[in-house]
Formats: sequence, structure tokens, C-alpha cells
Amino acid sequence: MNQIGVGVIGYGYWGPNVLRNLAETPGCEVVWCADKSPERCALVRRRYPAIKVTSDVNELLNDPRVEAVAIATPVSTHFMLAKEALSKGKHVLVEKPMAGTVAEAEELVELAKKRGLVLMVDHTFIYTGAVRKIRAIVESGELGELYYLDSVRINLGLFQHDVDVLWDLAAHDLSILVHLIPRAPKYVSAIGADHTGSRLADLAYLTLQYDNSFIAHFHINWLSPVKVRKMLIGGDRKMLVYDDMEPSEKVRVYDSGIKVTSQEGVYKTLVDYRTGDMWAPKLDVREGLAFECEHLVECIRTRAKCPRQAAQRD
Amino acid sequence: MNQIGVGVIGYGYWGPNVLRNLAETPGCEVVWCADKSPERCALVRRRYPAIKVTSDVNELLNDPRVEAVAIATPVSTHFMLAKEALSKGKHVLVEKPMAGTVAEAEELVELAKKRGLVLMVDHTFIYTGAVRKIRAIVESGELGELYYLDSVRINLGLFQHDVDVLWDLAAHDLSILVHLIPRAPKYVSAIGADHTGSRLADLAYLTLQYDNSFIAHFHINWLSPVKVRKMLIGGDRKMLVYDDMEPSEKVRVYDSGIKVTSQEGVYKTLVDYRTGDMWAPKLDVREGLAFECEHLVECIRTRAKCPRQAAQRD
Amino acid sequence: MNQIGVGVIGYGYWGPNVLRNLAETPGCEVVWCADKSPERCALVRRRYPAIKVTSDVNELLNDPRVEAVAIATPVSTHFMLAKEALSKGKHVLVEKPMAGTVAEAEELVELAKKRGLVLMVDHTFIYTGAVRKIRAIVESGELGELYYLDSVRINLGLFQHDVDVLWDLAAHDLSILVHLIPRAPKYVSAIGADHTGSRLADLAYLTLQYDNSFIAHFHINWLSPVKVRKMLIGGDRKMLVYDDMEPSEKVRVYDSGIKVTSQEGVYKTLVDYRTGDMWAPKLDVREGLAFECEHLVECIRTRAKCPRQAAQRD
Amino acid sequence: MNQIGVGVIGYGYWGPNVLRNLAETPGCEVVWCADKSPERCALVRRRYPAIKVTSDVNELLNDPRVEAVAIATPVSTHFMLAKEALSKGKHVLVEKPMAGTVAEAEELVELAKKRGLVLMVDHTFIYTGAVRKIRAIVESGELGELYYLDSVRINLGLFQHDVDVLWDLAAHDLSILVHLIPRAPKYVSAIGADHTGSRLADLAYLTLQYDNSFIAHFHINWLSPVKVRKMLIGGDRKMLVYDDMEPSEKVRVYDSGIKVTSQEGVYKTLVDYRTGDMWAPKLDVREGLAFECEHLVECIRTRAKCPRQAAQRD
Repeated sequence: MNQIGVGVIGYGYWGPNVLRNLAETPGCEVVWCADKSPERCALVRRRYPAIKVTSDVNELLNDPRVEAVAIATPVSTHFMLAKEALSKGKHVLVEKPMAGTVAEAEELVELAKKRGLVLMVDHTFIYTGAVRKIRAIVESGELGELYYLDSVRINLGLFQHDVDVLWDLAAHDLSILVHLIPRAPKYVSAIGADHTGSRLADLAYLTLQYDNSFIAHFHINWLSPVKVRKMLIGGDRKMLVYDDMEPSEKVRVYDSGIKVTSQEGVYKTLVDYRTGDMWAPKLDVREGLAFECEHLVECIRTRAKCPRQAAQRD
Repeated sequence: MNQIGVGVIGYGYWGPNVLRNLAETPGCEVVWCADKSPERCALVRRRYPAIKVTSDVNELLNDPRVEAVAIATPVSTHFMLAKEALSKGKHVLVEKPMAGTVAEAEELVELAKKRGLVLMVDHTFIYTGAVRKIRAIVESGELGELYYLDSVRINLGLFQHDVDVLWDLAAHDLSILVHLIPRAPKYVSAIGADHTGSRLADLAYLTLQYDNSFIAHFHINWLSPVKVRKMLIGGDRKMLVYDDMEPSEKVRVYDSGIKVTSQEGVYKTLVDYRTGDMWAPKLDVREGLAFECEHLVECIRTRAKCPRQAAQRD
Repeated sequence: MNQIGVGVIGYGYWGPNVLRNLAETPGCEVVWCADKSPERCALVRRRYPAIKVTSDVNELLNDPRVEAVAIATPVSTHFMLAKEALSKGKHVLVEKPMAGTVAEAEELVELAKKRGLVLMVDHTFIYTGAVRKIRAIVESGELGELYYLDSVRINLGLFQHDVDVLWDLAAHDLSILVHLIPRAPKYVSAIGADHTGSRLADLAYLTLQYDNSFIAHFHINWLSPVKVRKMLIGGDRKMLVYDDMEPSEKVRVYDSGIKVTSQEGVYKTLVDYRTGDMWAPKLDVREGLAFECEHLVECIRTRAKCPRQAAQRD
Repeated sequence: MNQIGVGVIGYGYWGPNVLRNLAETPGCEVVWCADKSPERCALVRRRYPAIKVTSDVNELLNDPRVEAVAIATPVSTHFMLAKEALSKGKHVLVEKPMAGTVAEAEELVELAKKRGLVLMVDHTFIYTGAVRKIRAIVESGELGELYYLDSVRINLGLFQHDVDVLWDLAAHDLSILVHLIPRAPKYVSAIGADHTGSRLADLAYLTLQYDNSFIAHFHINWLSPVKVRKMLIGGDRKMLVYDDMEPSEKVRVYDSGIKVTSQEGVYKTLVDYRTGDMWAPKLDVREGLAFECEHLVECIRTRAKCPRQAAQRD
């Protein structure tokens, strides 16, 4: 099979990870990298002498060897670049969030569908060993009926110029939530605050309420002195903690729960709780992005549609 | 000075701690303990042979040697018992929350004021070495202007029969918040969920929004497989983490923050962040409740009104 | 059955725990407490008005109601007090270490045997839920053949006046080791250092070497800024970590190990390793000392000899 | 200035880190990489198309463009390769341990001296922000007189075929010890055990005793289910903990210690202890190896001799 030619647009904070992983993915070959900054271009040249480098994204977009592009630029440029690439018949992997507005995102989805092209958002967490294992646990029914999902994703910075903390960080939590629990919420609410005068919230609380009392809540924050990446999932049979800051044992399953007993004649509910063993499954430690890049190649080759199926393979 | 005679009502979950501390507080003497359960009464007799024990609370309330009562019973009985005690001219220490409704609480406050009696709610956290140190740090201005206070107080159980998780657990966080930041919020909102059919929320998120972008948020939860007691306080100069589950170094101050610079001509706000040293002050490890019981005796003797001043002494 | 009358000698650092637990143990009754310090005597009187208190230990030893004594005094007095008590026909529970020399300990054992009395050393750790669970795991063979046991028991102070850190702290580790692995070592060696001029080591390393490469090593230290209580047990099938500072999940079993393969013709050993799930069993959280006091009463009643059997009951 | 041509020998476990860092170090250029494995050679070609790759190390050693070599091969080959390289007039950076015996190491040192070449061992830890900060603290006298240094460096695997765990892992601790405390011990002792039949110890305890009661002790172990990298340094004024597994705050300084008072007439030493604040200095998070590679280039250019001075610069 021929190698799929790929162009990487943006070599700033996340771009180097995308390029490094694409460069090691069988079935594709990075042929171009574009970045506006001469310093970043020089860095790419030093690291990857075989890749063509440009500060003019059009050079990259006009090269017929480029069949797919990876866009790792500021959010405000996602829509324009992805639209341009799709229009030129190229598959697109774009950083989260896909675009700055829902309308823009829908336009891109429509365009990709019309052209028969792959449009993939880099939701890297759903490809990690931890989230793949959590999904297998949730789908097995081991946790029982789900009560809640609570996530804390906080650290100091990086402040984004063009999106607030919700669009920046909650995108991760929402991608995980949707991946684990493919249902639609009934109510969504959010509260945030801006402390820099930028009119972009730097901390926010997002709540999603579902039928049958399931509730999801996210705390996202650019102003925390400590880095926390912690998710709790409570079920009526077992409960799970996913702590991405743990060097190992990121996922822990607790055989703990509550027992509800209604006493006849007493007209009141008694709730007792039980605690049991804890179990930390072994996780695949491979970088999620590596797995994701392979999935991109597979989607381009087969026009598969469903990242869920790919993530489910193991 | 004469010893103040004290009666303890309720020897269930928290009552033993109250009785034990009152029994060791200079200036007072526990003369009675009342509990409806014969087993609990027997336990008190075994542990404290010199204390009179009864299952009839009136015996305790009618003894003129009892000048003060400590009420550690289910919330739904707080109002009735406290009102009865105040009516009989006795000072009252009552477990949090003070009563089941605001109206009841206000009636108790009014009654105590009229009779010139001490009415104290057992907000034990504000007497701990950790919170006293945090208050000293906040008041010193070391953190700068405050951005937010975020608290997580979650564990498995104990489910209360007569109040929801907000009235049960958020009382702690609110007492600390008010102790640290004696300002009134502009907006208060809360979202919760009940998973047992009891119509009492077992997990809840409470948000308080203030003028000038300060925001406080509490996550309280009876359904968490892990016990978390963690509070973050972010300021524009420094930030603080209070982790009550740490065996030592419960309070950590981070010399971290953000710098906001407005670039002329560029019409946009640039936010940079800085990290620095961390510092964990030595804390007084004495049990908060011991300090609180001494404060109760002092309030009864002097009719002092302000727990804040007492907590500030050291 | 009659209550066994007990006298507690010493109400300093550990004595209060012994007395409190004996006072709640069915089948025995604390009738006397002796301590040389008037302040400690006053404290006992305040807490336990029904117990007779004296600064003259002979009063206690001469009371025929005292059938058993618990000795919680400085180590240098253990031998004399235990000998006196045994001579007067009383059962003895004595703090670790049993005595200041092996010869003294042997004399006590001999005396107890001759008189048909119970002589028990307060090795409290072997009665905890954690160590009882570890023993069950070791005995089940789940860990496979044991490779090593490594323990770190370090903190700041409390410096003892009459024994060094080995006699003070290693007694705990040795009691656990012997409880888990009732075999005799072939070699014992130790290295320590004294930094206070007291000629008593304040930090030490103790190594025990056994047949078939099993090795046990203890690091005990009064000069550590952090408190660590951590034991590793490595086997050829699984490995175990016991961290007594963890609030929960004190015992963790790792399905990790090594595989040794000898390649024919290559004349060298290849060692590969495998990692798997981790499992933290639920533990009985009851205070070890409570369980131990019940065992003391049982031993006195039945003249049972084997603490191992008692610890094994659950 | 001309770029120093470098050849990297060995692209197995650690070689990729060495090559990656050398490739980004100003002043040098990686021109060759040699590895016996065709798979590893292919990987280098894919990642660094501009670097010449060979499975014959002589190609690399005979190229006059190669002025320096980095040796990241099994320990048993260090001596032969380093000797060959020095003999051909090339500077050498060699993985720790430098050689398999002291005699071999001394021969290499002698040869380098005679030829005026740089011979550097990759003791990467002394170039990390953490160790550089610890050294500054120790040298400032802030800890007071040093009592002990205790290090635990344990994990599962990687088993080496040609050296035991002491030569493999203790090399790190010894390099740090010598870097911090450039004194010679009076006594050295070690105990180890082999559980695989390889006659190479897989766990070991190494003790170094110095004049004036300073003691250093290392626990190194390939058979631990958990990875621990923890060093304690106790002084008479303050104490320090270096935990390399912490994502941040790797170094903590405790204002804790002991006070020794001799009571006149009592003829005994009283030891009291005090605890105070804890302080975690901000650390340079740059990869130690990057800093080390710059130091190599500097040494080659200037023939500087002392890594201590370089590490001290900041």
C-alpha cells in the first residue's frame, strides 16, 4: 500500500506531539510541516531534516502529495484551515475543540460528508489505555446503574487567547463522557468567572443532568496551584476513580456502594453502605495519540466512521 | 470558680466526642448524659461511672445543676431540644446544622438573645489548627485579592434520615467560608440528585457568586468511594490548598499566580503565569473540639459573642 | 463468670491506650492504676473515677483483686515489675520489648511457666486487621515462594532514655516478621549510629538472612522528618505492600513478578518481568489493641499459649 | 565554531534519550549511530533520516568526522568500546557504570588523561534541577551538620545480564552522594541476594560509614512491585526529602530536628525534638540530560575537568 502523505499545520504546544506520532505511524508519512514562526520552522528542520517546512500554509495545502492534514493551531483558525483543507479534498485531523462555534463545526461535518472525507477531532484521551479500560468496565455493567460522573481538571495556565476554559479543557471531559455514556442530557448549566478582564472564563463549573438522576459535573480551572486530573464514576454496584496524575494504577474500582431498604410500616427509607475490596486493573501504557494516529490511517483507508468501535478493539 | 454543670444529649456518632472533650475541659463538669438507646446508656455508664445517665431527657433538663446542654441528636430534634433547654434557662451547644429550617434557627437565636444565654453551633472545623492558620494567612493579605474558594467534601455515607447532604456536609464548608470571608454572596445556586428514592439529595453542587468575580463552589457527596476533604483558595498573589486527609502538612501555600499584561496597540489581554516555592506552615495539632469546648466555657463565663475573636487568639 | 481484676502500671505515652482498651474489654475490669507522676494520677482519676489510683505500685501488686497486670513503663523497669508481679501470682501483659536483655526475658518466661501464668508481650501490630490479612495471604501461598521482606519504620522521636532505636522500633517489625514467617534466620547483622552522644543508636539498619536467599531488612530511625511505616514482601508469584500510613487500602497485592528462563546453548539466564492487576483487600478496621486485650482475657481463662492461633481466627 | 561530530553507539533502552538530547544540543551534531540490531537501526533511520546508521561500530569509529562518541551499550562492552574510542583520539561519554571493574575504569581514566581527551560518565541525576538544588542547600549549611543520607531506589526490573543491581542502580545514588558530600567513607559494607540463579544480586543494601557518625545507606532492588525513588538527608538543623516520583515538589525541606540537653547532676542525656514549617523550593524542570550534553560540549571545547563546577552554575 502507498503511504498516505500528511501535512502538519502548527508546531506550537501540541503540534510536536502530533508530528512525532504521525512520523512513527505505519501507513503514513509526514511530508510537510507549516508554522508561522521562523523559530518553530527551524526546530522542525533540525529534528526532521527529511520533512519540508514552510511558513506559508498554502504551500502545504497545494501539494498533491498531501492527502491529509493535522491542524494544531489556535482555535480561532481551526474552521478556516479545516474548511480550506476539506475543500481541497484532504482528510482532516483537527485539535479539540473542532471549531469556535457549533455552526462552524456543523458546516465542517457537512462538508466532509459531502466530499466523502475523514474529519476527525483529536480527542486523545479516549484512546488512552485508562479510558479504554474504563469504557470496557462501564459497558460490562460491573458498576451497575450509573449515579454520577464527576471530573476535576485543573492546573495553572495555559491561558488561551481565543477560547475560555470551558472550550479548552471541558472538551476533554465531554469527549470522555460521551465516549462512556452515549446518552443525551436533559439539562445543561454552567457557571464561570473571569479574573483577568479578558471576558473569557478562567474557571468554570459545568453540570449535565440526565433522566433517572444520572448527573455529570466538571470543574475546569486555569487558576489552580496544583494539577488535578481526577474523575469519579459512581454506580449502584461499584464505583470507579480515574486519577490521571498517578504514575501507575490510574484506574481503581471500588467494590463499594449503598443498600437501600424500605422498612414496612416505618414509612422511611433506610440507606446503609458497604465497602469492599479495591482493584486496579493493569493498563495499556502506550501513548493514546499513537493509537489515535493509527486509527486515523485506518479511517482514511476504510472510511470507517466510528471512533468508538476502534477504541473498543482491545 | 464553680464548675459549670453540663448535660450531654445524644451519645450516638458524634456525642462521644463532645462528651469526651467536655469531660476534659477545665471549668465545666459533665453531670448528665441522656440517650434513648439502652445500649448507648450502658456504654456511657461503663466509660464514665461518675456521670448520671438517663433515657429520659427531661430528667437532665430539669436538674438545676445543669447550666448548659450539648445537643448531639438527629437534626430533626435540634430545634425542639434547644428551645426547651433555652426556655429552662440553660446555655446550648448544638450540633450543626442548628435546626431544620431558617425560621427555626432564627427563633432559637431570638430566644437566646432574650434570655441572655449562649447559643453556640458546633462548627468544629473553625477551631482546628488548620483553619485557624488559613484564616491568619487570608487576613494577612498574603494571598492577595481572592479569586475563588473550591471545596470537595465527599465520602461513602453516613446517610442522614432527616436532612440531605447539603444540610449535613455543606454546613462545614459554609462555616469555614464565612469564617474566612465574612462577606455576603450575590447569587446562590445548587444542583443535587437523589438516588435512593428518599427525596433527599445524596450529592450536590453549591455555588456562591460574589461581587468582583469571587466565586465559591462546594461538591458534597455521600456516594463517593474515596474520602476527600480538599479546599483550594486562589488569590492573585498566592494560592492555598487545605487537604484535611493529609496526616501532616494539611495547609500548603503556593507562591504561584498569574500576571495579566495588556499590550498596547494589540488590543488583547496576555495572561502569563508563574510558579514558585511551596510552603507548609506548622499547625497546632490539638483537637479542634477541645479548643471549642474551652471557648464555650469562656462564652458562658463572659457572655462573649464572637467565635471569630476566640479562634483568632493564637 | 467473674471479671478478671486488672491493674495497669504506667499511664504515660502508651498506658492510656492500654487502660482504655482493657476498660472496654468484656471479662475483665480495671481496678487499679499506678503511676509515679501525681499529674498522671490526677488525669486517671478525672477520666475514670471508679478506678483506684496510686503512685505506689506495691499497693496495686498487693491487692488480691488484681489477677493480672499490664506494664506500660520505661523498658528498664519491665523486668523488675514483671518478675514481682509473676512472683505474686499475677498474669502479665508487658509492653515491648519484654525486657532489657535476653537473659532477663528468659528468666521471666521461665518464671511464668513454673507458676502457670500468662506472660504476654504487647505486640499490638500482629492483632491489626492489616497484619492478620497479610498473614492469611502469606499462608495461602498466594505470593509464592518468598524472596524478601523490607520494612521502613521511621519518624522524628520519641527518643527513649533506656533503649536504642532497635529495641524500641524494630521490636514491631520483628514481631510481624516472626508472625508471618516462623523460621529462624541464619545470619543477623546490624549497623547503627548515635548522633546525640547518648551511646544509644538513633538510626539503625538490621538485616536477617535465611536459607534459600530469603532476606529481611529493617530501617528504623528516630531522626526522619517524615513518618513512614512501609513494608514490602516480594514473592515469586505476587508481591505485597503494607503502608500503615494510608488511611485505607493499607495492604496492596500486586500480581507482578519475574520469569526466569534459561536459554539452552546460550549459557545465560534471562529474566523477564511481568506486571498485572493490583488488589487491595478490605481490612477489619478495629483497633488491634482491643482484639489483643480480648485475647489476653481468653488466654488467662483457657491458658492458651499461641497468639498465632488467636490472630488467625478470622 | 565548528560543530563537534558525535557518534552514538547503542540505541537500546537509554540510547534514544542520549541521541535525542545530543541532536538538540548546540555546538554538536550527531553524524553516526551504531547498533547491532537491524530493527533498532531501522528505527533510527526513520526518526533521523540525516544520520548515518550502521551495525558495524568500526565504521563509526573510523570516521574522522566523529570527534566524540556516546556509549550506551551493555556494561560488559563499555571498557572495550571506550578504550577503542580513546585510542582513536575521540572524546567519550559513557553510560554508568563506566566499566565492569575498578581496574578497567582506572585504565580508561589513565588513557584519557594521557591523550588529553574528555572521559565523562553519564551520571544524569547530578544534572537535574532537583539534585542541583539539593546541592545548593547542603552547601549553604542550611541543614547543619549532616547525620545521614538514606536512599531507596527500587522497582520491578530491568534485570541486567552482565551486572548486578548494585552496579546498575547504586551507581546513581553513589554519584549523588559524592556530588553532595565529597568525603571518603571509613567503612563500606553490602548485603545482597540473588533469586534467579544468575549469581547476580537482584536486591542489595549498601552502607557507608564516615567519621563523626555520618552514615549513608542505599536500598536498591529489581524485585519491588512499586517504583520508589526517595532520598532522606538528615541534619542537625533541618532535614530534606527528595522524592523523584513526585510530579512537582520533588524536594522538601523540613525545619525539624532534635535538641540534645544534658541535665547536670542527672547524668543522662535528654533528647527533645521540634517540628516546624516545610518548604518546597521551585526546581528547574529541564531534563538533566540536556544540561549534561551541553556540559559535555563545553568540556570538549575548554577541557574543563569538573562536573561539580558545571552543575553549580545556577
